[in-house]
Amino acid sequence: MRPVTAGPGPRTRLTPDERRVQLLDLGVRLLATRSLDELSIDLLAEEAGISRGLLYHYFGNKHAFHEAVVRRSVDDLISQTAPVPEGDPLTRLAGSMAAYVDYVEANHAGYLSLVKGAQGGNETLRAIYDEARSALTDRIFTEDAQAAVIPDTPAIRLLVRGWAAMAEELVLSWVDEPDGVTRAELEQLLAVSLPALVGAVGD
Amino acid sequence: MRPVTAGPGPRTRLTPDERRVQLLDLGVRLLATRSLDELSIDLLAEEAGISRGLLYHYFGNKHAFHEAVVRRSVDDLISQTAPVPEGDPLTRLAGSMAAYVDYVEANHAGYLSLVKGAQGGNETLRAIYDEARSALTDRIFTEDAQAAVIPDTPAIRLLVRGWAAMAEELVLSWVDEPDGVTRAELEQLLAVSLPALVGAVGD
Repeated sequence: MRPVTAGPGPRTRLTPDERRVQLLDLGVRLLATRSLDELSIDLLAEEAGISRGLLYHYFGNKHAFHEAVVRRSVDDLISQTAPVPEGDPLTRLAGSMAAYVDYVEANHAGYLSLVKGAQGGNETLRAIYDEARSALTDRIFTEDAQAAVIPDTPAIRLLVRGWAAMAEELVLSWVDEPDGVTRAELEQLLAVSLPALVGAVGD
Repeated sequence: MRPVTAGPGPRTRLTPDERRVQLLDLGVRLLATRSLDELSIDLLAEEAGISRGLLYHYFGNKHAFHEAVVRRSVDDLISQTAPVPEGDPLTRLAGSMAAYVDYVEANHAGYLSLVKGAQGGNETLRAIYDEARSALTDRIFTEDAQAAVIPDTPAIRLLVRGWAAMAEELVLSWVDEPDGVTRAELEQLLAVSLPALVGAVGD
């Protein structure tokens, strides 16, 4: 199998930081269709066409490499699901949730292994996962700073946290096995659920 | 520390099955305030005042012992949260969810270790957890066989699965750290969330 290179190859004059970023990008692409257990330094070395020694130079050890790749993958998740800057709040939320489905579909194996690792008690993965979860749910409040749709109360903060767990379960289940549910139906569930919950609790 | 005996002591004439059930009950009580990692055959032997050898005779090995205790604890969860036989569906759902909060409060450490183990990829725990989840969510449909409140469609099945994940997150988060949310508010979130979601999707 011909190695997929990480870009213009090692002879291009890249700074060490640029090179590291390039290797991380490759790691994220490899993780999309693999679990963390399957993402080894050996595999990255082979795919990048460089030595294992150089990778240890960049990442230190396997755990640090996994941490860096997961962190970058989660940054991608956060940026790809950022709501568009304008429009009514519910349409923007719907767009953001559709982007979340796209992300999970494109990165299923890696994302699932992050969720499993975090929930199974791996503390490093848990910290990254919690940061991502907070970034995604805090956005709900900062995006709606006037609290026009989502009042900022302790109970609603808890509810949003629960809703995020629901959204994750819905998307992971559906990507794994749609079981007769169309993508349009899934997107509708994701788009209407939060306003419905907030509306019901406010009553 | 004086051992807490599992009942009338080994000299009482119990059948082996009765004795096993008694030991499982003790295991479930010990698990309530401990994780599975902390629940050892040694601890059970000490608390029951019998030999480790006899426990191995009843349970075979540590994994089988853990499996039997978790299965019994999950049976307790299912029976304790069974809706009362009569009344309107939403009141019965609310009662069932309040019982779920009681169960998680009383069994926090053990329940959390089941959830973590299941989500972290322990296949035995996953199977028990999935059975429990199915029992709890299938009940939503069998309890409402005329589909008066909850229509039985693939999208609603998926939604109920997501809602169960939300309920778990809400209760585990709240028991861990209420963060200004009262128990009454939590119960309200749990009681109104499912009908609100189903109503919103049906629109």
